[in-house]
Amino acid sequence: MEPNAIEAKIKQLPQLHFERMHLTDFLLTWEKSADEIAAVFAVADILQGMRRSNISARVFDSGLAISLFRDQSTRTRFSFASAANLLGLTLADLDEGKTQIAHGETVRETANMVSFMADAIGIRDDMYIGRGNTYMREVAAAVQQGYDAGILEQRPTLVNLQCDIDHPTQSMSDMQHLIHTFGGVENLRDKKIAMSWAYSPSYGKPLSVPQGVAGLMTRFGMNVVLAHPPGYEIMPEVEAEAAKQAKASGGSFTRTHSMQEAFTDADIVYPKSWAPFAAMEKRTDLFGQGDMEGIKALEKELLAQNAGFKQWECTEELMKRTLQGKALYLHCLPADITGVSCAAGEVTASVFDRYRDPLYRQASYKPYIIAAMILLARFKNPADLLQKRMQAARKRVR
Amino acid sequence: MEPNAIEAKIKQLPQLHFERMHLTDFLLTWEKSADEIAAVFAVADILQGMRRSNISARVFDSGLAISLFRDQSTRTRFSFASAANLLGLTLADLDEGKTQIAHGETVRETANMVSFMADAIGIRDDMYIGRGNTYMREVAAAVQQGYDAGILEQRPTLVNLQCDIDHPTQSMSDMQHLIHTFGGVENLRDKKIAMSWAYSPSYGKPLSVPQGVAGLMTRFGMNVVLAHPPGYEIMPEVEAEAAKQAKASGGSFTRTHSMQEAFTDADIVYPKSWAPFAAMEKRTDLFGQGDMEGIKALEKELLAQNAGFKQWECTEELMKRTLQGKALYLHCLPADITGVSCAAGEVTASVFDRYRDPLYRQASYKPYIIAAMILLARFKNPADLLQKRMQAARKRVR
Amino acid sequence: MEPNAIEAKIKQLPQLHFERMHLTDFLLTWEKSADEIAAVFAVADILQGMRRSNISARVFDSGLAISLFRDQSTRTRFSFASAANLLGLTLADLDEGKTQIAHGETVRETANMVSFMADAIGIRDDMYIGRGNTYMREVAAAVQQGYDAGILEQRPTLVNLQCDIDHPTQSMSDMQHLIHTFGGVENLRDKKIAMSWAYSPSYGKPLSVPQGVAGLMTRFGMNVVLAHPPGYEIMPEVEAEAAKQAKASGGSFTRTHSMQEAFTDADIVYPKSWAPFAAMEKRTDLFGQGDMEGIKALEKELLAQNAGFKQWECTEELMKRTLQGKALYLHCLPADITGVSCAAGEVTASVFDRYRDPLYRQASYKPYIIAAMILLARFKNPADLLQKRMQAARKRVR
Repeated sequence: MEPNAIEAKIKQLPQLHFERMHLTDFLLTWEKSADEIAAVFAVADILQGMRRSNISARVFDSGLAISLFRDQSTRTRFSFASAANLLGLTLADLDEGKTQIAHGETVRETANMVSFMADAIGIRDDMYIGRGNTYMREVAAAVQQGYDAGILEQRPTLVNLQCDIDHPTQSMSDMQHLIHTFGGVENLRDKKIAMSWAYSPSYGKPLSVPQGVAGLMTRFGMNVVLAHPPGYEIMPEVEAEAAKQAKASGGSFTRTHSMQEAFTDADIVYPKSWAPFAAMEKRTDLFGQGDMEGIKALEKELLAQNAGFKQWECTEELMKRTLQGKALYLHCLPADITGVSCAAGEVTASVFDRYRDPLYRQASYKPYIIAAMILLARFKNPADLLQKRMQAARKRVR
Repeated sequence: MEPNAIEAKIKQLPQLHFERMHLTDFLLTWEKSADEIAAVFAVADILQGMRRSNISARVFDSGLAISLFRDQSTRTRFSFASAANLLGLTLADLDEGKTQIAHGETVRETANMVSFMADAIGIRDDMYIGRGNTYMREVAAAVQQGYDAGILEQRPTLVNLQCDIDHPTQSMSDMQHLIHTFGGVENLRDKKIAMSWAYSPSYGKPLSVPQGVAGLMTRFGMNVVLAHPPGYEIMPEVEAEAAKQAKASGGSFTRTHSMQEAFTDADIVYPKSWAPFAAMEKRTDLFGQGDMEGIKALEKELLAQNAGFKQWECTEELMKRTLQGKALYLHCLPADITGVSCAAGEVTASVFDRYRDPLYRQASYKPYIIAAMILLARFKNPADLLQKRMQAARKRVR
Repeated sequence: MEPNAIEAKIKQLPQLHFERMHLTDFLLTWEKSADEIAAVFAVADILQGMRRSNISARVFDSGLAISLFRDQSTRTRFSFASAANLLGLTLADLDEGKTQIAHGETVRETANMVSFMADAIGIRDDMYIGRGNTYMREVAAAVQQGYDAGILEQRPTLVNLQCDIDHPTQSMSDMQHLIHTFGGVENLRDKKIAMSWAYSPSYGKPLSVPQGVAGLMTRFGMNVVLAHPPGYEIMPEVEAEAAKQAKASGGSFTRTHSMQEAFTDADIVYPKSWAPFAAMEKRTDLFGQGDMEGIKALEKELLAQNAGFKQWECTEELMKRTLQGKALYLHCLPADITGVSCAAGEVTASVFDRYRDPLYRQASYKPYIIAAMILLARFKNPADLLQKRMQAARKRVR
């Protein structure tokens, strides 16, 4: 994007209604209006355009971005670090092992104690159904209380970096990739996307990726097909939301127990392993009871269950069933690649290899999506702010 | 504070004599003159005023702030990170587990090796009596030698983030909270503050908080009462210092074995657990001898001793004895709250809940206190520096 | 250096041919031309001069510097952090324990995933012969592919922070120390430097320091003597490179099994422990086979072998054999000091103490060397860039 095109995009921003995002959080995509979702994509594009034109997008001279990862992460961790850095915020990682949190601090207290100079908070908490999103809402309520009481000088915005329900920075990056690949969101109407379960030798992968895809991509008139073996259902509330949205957008949301059926004539395929929702709920209960023996037994049971569905693999044969054999293959990475990272996995090596560049590009949008979410929550008039940055034309690299 | 008020406060700074702080460290409050202490409070207020007025206080374009935490920390860790960020320094954490320090590096060598581009060093080392403060002085001497020899291009200032003797960033934040709550340091004269031991199911909490309070608050004409069960004495040197200072300031420093007596008609109460000094000395000896069995036995003994004083709890009944039943309740957090974080603890939930906002505000001063300490040590003419920042009026948030 | 002298040095830069460094990496010093090596020293001097003159060398307004340490590190870790900070980059540490790398991510994938906003990558991987440098080349190739495919918006430069073959940031800092101590690179011609093995109670120290010294210092007309007990050979490829370079530069590269002979009339001595190359190769094989028992047996064997050479210690007697008894003593630190960090080690305490200031100065060049390597790889016209920074004269400390 040339500077002129960036400025044009900035000028169009005020056509969208996203005022409600100011001083709030980004927890679930389906809580946001169509305009708010569109604003995130637009601002992400603008920020990427600015960086590619070597124009600094630092809108903070100082300030912290707090991160809290309750599960391992590479790309989301670095995406959050990159987004913070792009805007001028400094990352401060709340490593629970190094803190006194284990010593009886409440969520409310910790949230305020780390936020005196925080403009953003990013949290990953995806291990237990019913826990992660709830925890994020507690943190958000706590900093809101602190801000209302005049204790916090600013209201840090909370960005959901993956919870038990949604993975909005992932699904929004995936969607941005589709928008760019298909040449605009309007071109996605009537496209068929197969969000399919796939076999993995590990068990218990988060449900937030398929749920995030179902909860977002049903909004744009696409035909979203959710495919999985019997017993691998996702959260019913998300399915209901997806169905409602599909109807409203003029698309569809269907389910099938056949990977073949899902792939047939698909424009886009997203084959990925996840854990059965019911089993994850049971796991949370066992965890709540401190029943570690029960958890071990459940894991064994789930691995045995998984092993019955090794044929759910994204092969060249399956890819041939897609539209002209050329569907866009998506994955949030890392993928379980048959013969590479495991004996039998989600995808054959030849399919994965063919799509490596697009896969990396898919991931590359995440820093900009996160930065856009922060910017829209922290600034009342983003168009004015960005326009001034364009005029200042401060170089990112001198 | 409006910009005019901030500028007025800056103009008053040169009335204080704090020249001696330049290129030195902040280790114990009682090593600092009254003017030097006043300068820290004034600069902290100015920095807070600037941030609230959205004026950037970045006085460093680059530079590192080294942190070394030899004990867990949440709020002090984030306060130091916030202070560094506010001034434009980048945090670099010296995680001893990731370094070669265990492999025989000396204090002197390590201190210089990490300080080539360091403007500040913050250390927490509070686990062993006789060790923490000594270690900090070794580090300070080492960087002074390096600076004198022309090896270090700048003299990093060392800030004590809690040692075995004092916790100056805590006691100064506590004091700043009192100054703001009571409307000025002059209004604290003749106020009664009860620094009282309280029961906790854990043992061995650092002595630096009660010692820091006794060593600082006796300087302002306050009546400081130290209350604890027999056997829970603090360091005698600190008590002597407190007594001397109280006499000089026209206040008082008294001790009692009755929490009731301490709370009676108190304006301020600070009920908090700590370990007996003599036991902590013994623990250091056992540690020095590598006698881990002896340490375990001592811990058991101390927990049993603690259990005899469960009635030392800050209850509503006790609070009623304070002046008009409305004393300001202080705590450095996290508190052991009865029925919340433990079965029986330092304070009942209803008292804690009622003071939550003021408690968070008390903590909120720490980043500014630390930033003020760094600024006063690293700049020869802080008034001129701050005045220029006011005139530049660079926005923290664009 | 005064600003005038700095500007003069900048003006001389274009006399050197270092165009090929743009958008490439720094892996082995002997892959770089004489002019490229000279450019690193010159830019390091300029950056140090600027910082000492309080002129900001921030050439990045935002951007990340990724670090990956597969072995413990204090000084190199902080040197990399300092270099990044000096140039305006923010450190993001790729802690493999906190990431999903163990879960089957490929080198290629991870390298791209962390590099979307990375301008520099620093890696230490020195534990296994045949592995570290190979790994770095894989990472460099991966980000080159990502950049060529338009996935990465910039080509991050990879800096070798110690591998199995070379330790270029160390040897270049050592050399910069010699240049400054002897008053110019031209004064090093015909100087004798003894790179000698020395006894240490630990085993398996990396070979990259002696190899780095042999591979660099043979380029300047010096007489480089490599001394070690029989069996402690370094990599033959590096020896061959050193011999070739010595011949070309008019210096010499000789080997001896006598520490006495090496020290005789030496201008510079560098006594330091390292592991035998052959044993380290064997260790890598055992590691590859997962033979942990074999590794333990090998370690025992190596310690026994080491113990036969306790007389290889840098003593006052040995120092007296050097030129006028005043050779410059070098060490990369931390040293094993007899009676201080171990019962018997590489150097006696009195020798070490006498050279402490020069040793610390030797280490102090590393941040500037690293910053110069990054700058020369990331900017097409460093002279112009630096000249503009001089003219802007933005203060590092306000």
